[in-house]
Amino acid sequence: MYELNIKTGNGCESQVVVGESYRNLDRYLPEGKQIVIITDSNVRRHYGFFLDAFPVIEIGTGEQHKTIRTLEHLYWELLRLNIDRNGFVVAVGGGIVCDVAGYAASTFMRGIPFGFVSTSLLSQVDASVGGKNGVNFGGYKNMIGTFNQPRFVICDPQMLRTLPVEEFISGFAEIVKAAAIRDAELFAYLERNAEKALDGDPEVLLHLVSKSVKIKAQVVERDEREQGERRILNFGHTFGHAIEVLSGMSHGKAVSAGMMIAARWSSEICGLPNDQVQRLEELLSGLKLPVAADIAADELFRAAVKDKKRENDAIHMVLLNAIGSAEICRLPIDDIRKRLEG
Amino acid sequence: MYELNIKTGNGCESQVVVGESYRNLDRYLPEGKQIVIITDSNVRRHYGFFLDAFPVIEIGTGEQHKTIRTLEHLYWELLRLNIDRNGFVVAVGGGIVCDVAGYAASTFMRGIPFGFVSTSLLSQVDASVGGKNGVNFGGYKNMIGTFNQPRFVICDPQMLRTLPVEEFISGFAEIVKAAAIRDAELFAYLERNAEKALDGDPEVLLHLVSKSVKIKAQVVERDEREQGERRILNFGHTFGHAIEVLSGMSHGKAVSAGMMIAARWSSEICGLPNDQVQRLEELLSGLKLPVAADIAADELFRAAVKDKKRENDAIHMVLLNAIGSAEICRLPIDDIRKRLEG
Repeated sequence: MYELNIKTGNGCESQVVVGESYRNLDRYLPEGKQIVIITDSNVRRHYGFFLDAFPVIEIGTGEQHKTIRTLEHLYWELLRLNIDRNGFVVAVGGGIVCDVAGYAASTFMRGIPFGFVSTSLLSQVDASVGGKNGVNFGGYKNMIGTFNQPRFVICDPQMLRTLPVEEFISGFAEIVKAAAIRDAELFAYLERNAEKALDGDPEVLLHLVSKSVKIKAQVVERDEREQGERRILNFGHTFGHAIEVLSGMSHGKAVSAGMMIAARWSSEICGLPNDQVQRLEELLSGLKLPVAADIAADELFRAAVKDKKRENDAIHMVLLNAIGSAEICRLPIDDIRKRLEG
Repeated sequence: MYELNIKTGNGCESQVVVGESYRNLDRYLPEGKQIVIITDSNVRRHYGFFLDAFPVIEIGTGEQHKTIRTLEHLYWELLRLNIDRNGFVVAVGGGIVCDVAGYAASTFMRGIPFGFVSTSLLSQVDASVGGKNGVNFGGYKNMIGTFNQPRFVICDPQMLRTLPVEEFISGFAEIVKAAAIRDAELFAYLERNAEKALDGDPEVLLHLVSKSVKIKAQVVERDEREQGERRILNFGHTFGHAIEVLSGMSHGKAVSAGMMIAARWSSEICGLPNDQVQRLEELLSGLKLPVAADIAADELFRAAVKDKKRENDAIHMVLLNAIGSAEICRLPIDDIRKRLEG
């Protein structure tokens, strides 16, 4: 078991436990609070026998439910269950459940505390750490949200067994990202163990999730509100988000294709050696992740410049100067258009 | 001019300026940001000549617009205006505009900064200080919201001249509240100057607004997230909110009637002398504020126990032991029912 405590901006602590069983949830619940579970229909089908000991609010599965409508559903149910400021929300699910439930908890009665039981690989390595939450709006990802950390995050590798295979694969993209921006050793470990990872080897998964969580936590702790350094976590995401919206690809797959665009630009702009671009491509392919997306340059451009990371007439884009080392480059929007079209 | 700097939980400063002209707004705007004004149709009718120098988003007037629907309208307009993380929202209006715009700014792209030009007496003395924002939901006031301070609040007494008289009167309730919980001297000043205040005497208004802002700021600074002491600001609000929802009275008037219920209970529970209960009643009457509401006890009970301040089977209610001195009492819900019915 690997445990990590993250200090948050408002002085609270967020406890991330990798390798813990969801059956020990009780140990993490605060005393004397009114507990309510928020989960999706899929997770409930598998774990209802455990969850239904608490009041449960269910949402639908899939990105199309990450909306203000779903928030309204949650607010109504919280009211109906008479949850007050003494309430405590436990989100049990993947990134969508955690994002939506975290936002609902952060805004219901101006904020009640919450914790996560993270059931997907993607949310274990990414969504559950960092305190970002929110919903999509107007066709853009996570347009509405807050920064607010969960009190605890339980990452149970056993739960990954009930994950659809496509979703499991998708999760590796954020692990590759974490390695690419900060940890050459983890990248090499991935290269050696890609097959075992895909087979769900518990030891390999525990190592990968722990390392990824640690990398993310270190970056977030220094820059919770994404004023500077935290931006390196967006490697692959400027175009990843756009690809996700335009193609309907899963988040992880879209980020995989987005990383390849960023890697090629890295070699042009930041001197990332070509053999390292190739290593990234081979690792992603080996993990059955896409290395390109079939989207017209002008569409990709339009969707990407609406990204939250845009500032005035430039985008801050994360590029690599080597595997394990990222930097943030300010690229004028015109330059981005030319590169995409060229 | 009276200026006050409030330190906020996240390390920012909120600057409140009482007696400043809205025409000096420029002096408070940050450099190099994309400014957008959020206001209501009423304020725009009076001040459009000034505001329309910026992009303006307009919302309707009245409590019925303090909804998630209005938030969606704001998010759409912010997107349409291409506001990004470099944006800065200025809310120009009363409590509703500031609450809704403050929440929209706090959640759009996970939060862009904002400032207030506070145009109503109520919002100058209350809504603009303290960092609470949000919207109503499911028939309950401010059910959805965050704590987040504006960068600046401009309180221009000249703007109160364009306020409908009923709304102006309503604002005095929160001034009386501030005096009742913390400042016997201000209470006596109000008693001596009620008539001048109602006539809009600029010197008296400046004094009243400055003092009220100072009281609120002191309380909020010590307890931004309403864990303890800040609750004393809810004097008159437990039943005030319920009366507001049930009767359709304005916030100030409902709080006035709510304060009288709390004052009578204060004399029964905390030894508030009867002559001080009477002084409160006379002051409120003198300010043309209601001292009772014609609502059935069971309705009032049901609406009040849904209040955000409820915790388990009790409500924390603010009572007075003397004019200028408040305490927080935990009243069992059964006790509240009996007192209302008795």
